[in-house]
Amino acid sequence: MPQHPGKKPPELSIRRGRPIRMPSAGDPRVYLVGAGPGDPELLTVRAARLLEAADFVFHDALVPQAILNQVREGAEMVAVGHRAGGAKPSVEPAAKEMARQAIAGNVVVRLKGGDPFLFGRGGEEAQALLDSGVAFEVVPGVSSALAGPAAAGIPVTHRRLAASVTIVTGHECEGELERVRWDALATASDTLVVLMGAGRLTQLSRRIIAAGRPPATPAAVVMAASRPEQRQALATLADISQAARAAGIGPPAILVVGEVVALAQSLGRQGIEQLGAEVAAL
Amino acid sequence: MPQHPGKKPPELSIRRGRPIRMPSAGDPRVYLVGAGPGDPELLTVRAARLLEAADFVFHDALVPQAILNQVREGAEMVAVGHRAGGAKPSVEPAAKEMARQAIAGNVVVRLKGGDPFLFGRGGEEAQALLDSGVAFEVVPGVSSALAGPAAAGIPVTHRRLAASVTIVTGHECEGELERVRWDALATASDTLVVLMGAGRLTQLSRRIIAAGRPPATPAAVVMAASRPEQRQALATLADISQAARAAGIGPPAILVVGEVVALAQSLGRQGIEQLGAEVAAL
Repeated sequence: MPQHPGKKPPELSIRRGRPIRMPSAGDPRVYLVGAGPGDPELLTVRAARLLEAADFVFHDALVPQAILNQVREGAEMVAVGHRAGGAKPSVEPAAKEMARQAIAGNVVVRLKGGDPFLFGRGGEEAQALLDSGVAFEVVPGVSSALAGPAAAGIPVTHRRLAASVTIVTGHECEGELERVRWDALATASDTLVVLMGAGRLTQLSRRIIAAGRPPATPAAVVMAASRPEQRQALATLADISQAARAAGIGPPAILVVGEVVALAQSLGRQGIEQLGAEVAAL
Repeated sequence: MPQHPGKKPPELSIRRGRPIRMPSAGDPRVYLVGAGPGDPELLTVRAARLLEAADFVFHDALVPQAILNQVREGAEMVAVGHRAGGAKPSVEPAAKEMARQAIAGNVVVRLKGGDPFLFGRGGEEAQALLDSGVAFEVVPGVSSALAGPAAAGIPVTHRRLAASVTIVTGHECEGELERVRWDALATASDTLVVLMGAGRLTQLSRRIIAAGRPPATPAAVVMAASRPEQRQALATLADISQAARAAGIGPPAILVVGEVVALAQSLGRQGIEQLGAEVAAL
């Protein structure tokens, strides 16, 4: 494996932690790591330690710089994938390159926003790694689907208000939106969380109303949850698109629909300690 | 605030991390912290730092010892709440006591399994804290709803197989199960994750089949995900209850239903690096 003369010891440790297994020639592996919602302190301990031990970090273009700053100096950074609106490349070429580096004895981290197995094609990448002859280890992350609402003071479930939550993608690429059975989903679950929907809030809110959700249902859009540039807008489902526009909200953002959103009025205003967060339109 | 002569500096640090704000008399707060699925390395960096700075940790009875071992020596530990099957006490008395300790200048952590705002009554506790005159900060955690399936090699979404995931509780207390609209939910979402359902797998699987999900749908039960005692069972929805019983699976466990579960056959067997995990029935 490559020598890093300036390699410093990891700053993170935890009592009784598992050591990061250095791959050997006969046992190559790639770490599929969730980066969480964006605040470096919401990395898991294991993710933070892997970033500090990495030789190669293959990261989504959307992983924020504050997270990338946690990577060991001297590690090779490789941006993978696409930004919203662009075509999605095949996962194969990146998997092949990751496998090659892991087989060469490097600590290879595949860093994905949020959780690697909730959207983001982590399952496909894992299969492609296996097909390339290397094992993988999944390191789950804090999902924006939960951290986003939480950052605005919204618990996605609540004993009186919500006993179920559904998470879908509002992504504009590749017809995923059309595969979602909105008619059933929009009303079946008490809370609905739509990831990657900021670019088409008007269509999404209309679609959800058309499926039978009352226009007066509380709705929130949370942009850049947990980051210094966080903003959110609260409104009715009918008005949420306009409220988000007025608040200057763009991607990355999540849409939350359901009675629990009303809790943001008390939990979001008085209670939440979100340093640097800007409450845009309450 | 109390003096801890033996207080050692936190073992965890992260570059450019936010300092843990020590509460002052005029600014008392309680940290509502997600403990994640059970592996201490799946704590967030912020959670780990708070546990190492805590004067008081009010924890769920279900938070495993390996997590509690991360708490600063000398901190006062207070078990709160109930075990599955017991009656749920009011959140008020614990909130009052937490508020009292925070107002006295202590670093008070409320430690909850998984994520504090996905089931577990975090929203209610946050409100009770506000009512008691203290602020709160939510520290989201890795949810078992995602980490559980991942630990068995199951991505809850997949571009070909699942564009939506619904999370519900199968908890036996207080009629929550009856509030879930199973008829709609069981078929609306591609992937269904039922938390806290281990005690009534037979009823749950029958209910989901009765709601229209084919009996041959792949299903998995994952017990103690991410912990050394992890076990899982894979079967059809019709057979999952029996398979779980044969594998000796009890609470805490999650049920996963949907086509994505079949991926565990390849991703779970060959790929997953789960040290100490026991694959019970594949």
